[in-house]
Amino acid sequence: MPEGGVRLDGAGRVHLVGAGPGDPELMTVRARLLVETAEAVVFDRLVSREIMALVPDGALRLDVGKAPGRHRLSQVEINALLVELARGGLPVVRLKGGDPFTFGRGGEEAAHLRRHGIAVEVVPGVTAASGCAATLGLPLTQRGLAQGLRYLTGHAQEGAALEPDWAGLADPETTLVVYMGLGQIGRIAERLVAAGLPAATPAVAVQSGTTPRQRHRLATLGTLVEVAAGFGGDGPVLFIIGRVVALAPAWTGCHALAPA
Amino acid sequence: MPEGGVRLDGAGRVHLVGAGPGDPELMTVRARLLVETAEAVVFDRLVSREIMALVPDGALRLDVGKAPGRHRLSQVEINALLVELARGGLPVVRLKGGDPFTFGRGGEEAAHLRRHGIAVEVVPGVTAASGCAATLGLPLTQRGLAQGLRYLTGHAQEGAALEPDWAGLADPETTLVVYMGLGQIGRIAERLVAAGLPAATPAVAVQSGTTPRQRHRLATLGTLVEVAAGFGGDGPVLFIIGRVVALAPAWTGCHALAPA
Repeated sequence: MPEGGVRLDGAGRVHLVGAGPGDPELMTVRARLLVETAEAVVFDRLVSREIMALVPDGALRLDVGKAPGRHRLSQVEINALLVELARGGLPVVRLKGGDPFTFGRGGEEAAHLRRHGIAVEVVPGVTAASGCAATLGLPLTQRGLAQGLRYLTGHAQEGAALEPDWAGLADPETTLVVYMGLGQIGRIAERLVAAGLPAATPAVAVQSGTTPRQRHRLATLGTLVEVAAGFGGDGPVLFIIGRVVALAPAWTGCHALAPA
Repeated sequence: MPEGGVRLDGAGRVHLVGAGPGDPELMTVRARLLVETAEAVVFDRLVSREIMALVPDGALRLDVGKAPGRHRLSQVEINALLVELARGGLPVVRLKGGDPFTFGRGGEEAAHLRRHGIAVEVVPGVTAASGCAATLGLPLTQRGLAQGLRYLTGHAQEGAALEPDWAGLADPETTLVVYMGLGQIGRIAERLVAAGLPAATPAVAVQSGTTPRQRHRLATLGTLVEVAAGFGGDGPVLFIIGRVVALAPAWTGCHALAPA
């Protein structure tokens, strides 16, 4: 780790760790070590069961996972819990799905801990978009087709409507990935079409990407909401929207989506 | 790995592997295993020397790295080389910095290999943005401040001018990360300001992120080009532009950048 990357001179210590997309082989070496030697793990529902199975017997496990509409602990409560645990002397592994600083409120937790004098190590992770793209064999960018990549969350701040710059988002040369958007995808797709992104734009919905429960369904922007309605269970769903979806190999079926 | 994630029934095999941002501890477990047991590695200049040091003695190492303006092998030549090596019977590790499907032309290589009947496994990696953000303690998204994240490359298709939708990019509520943009950052910053993104928007340039050679320089959108001019050496440089930069902890100096 570079100088400055870790500050462990405070009172207590929290490792804010990205668990990656789900497959334990896709954890970083650093994350894997921290999880396999953890004494206390605070985790989310986005962390796969395969990864949680690596936590040693006897370690403290605290599930603060939040299913949509079923908040178990508020963010304020999670922040307070992390401070309390760290002050208790155990090094705390705060495990988050994907990358801790790409959505998932890792920044809020890190800031709260620092304000309380607690040292924070941040371990980045493979974000769900990269994991899903790899297992589908589908590049997120491609010269001449998608020169940029955009990540959006379907979760807005509580009480606030999700109102991004739809015109800016409706860019056929940028691949759009929607995280945590199962409840909002109908509205998102509708706004994108209204802003000018063709309804025939290829899209794919992926649930529980990179785990043994992974499944994907092909769609276009116009049919994405129907396709998403078919997903049951509580595995996280990611949407990839853009011309690149048609570049996936034949076995995914995505090639059938190339716009005419 | 999930069903469908790996297709190894063709003639020859290439593992298209993301090496992550630079620190070997931030490789995935799968990538680390593939590199440490490799027989043939085809690598880029974006792969850190620390990671290349993990390749076994006696393995074939082929540097196809491209420094700006000093192309060693063209993409067509790289594609042909990968096919030739794979057909020769050795499993080939094609190692790329970051994530193979986030810029870096992994999609082009995978498509070419598949067209030639060669099986491709894609191993995602931690992208440079996540790595740099983690070492700086700087979240890429934050509720109320940046609800989205956008990745742009400074490299356009050869011969084509980089002309993204500047108005869409100049969104103060989206964090913008520029990959491979050292040669283009002046123009990019100028266009963003012209499109309405305040010149006082906090920004940071990071070179060789997560390696022992990491250094970062703080700037605003308006001063980013001056700051970038101070970088020597050939380590990759990443730019992070947006309000979130001011959220980094005090030791980075980034807090001084909060717009008034």
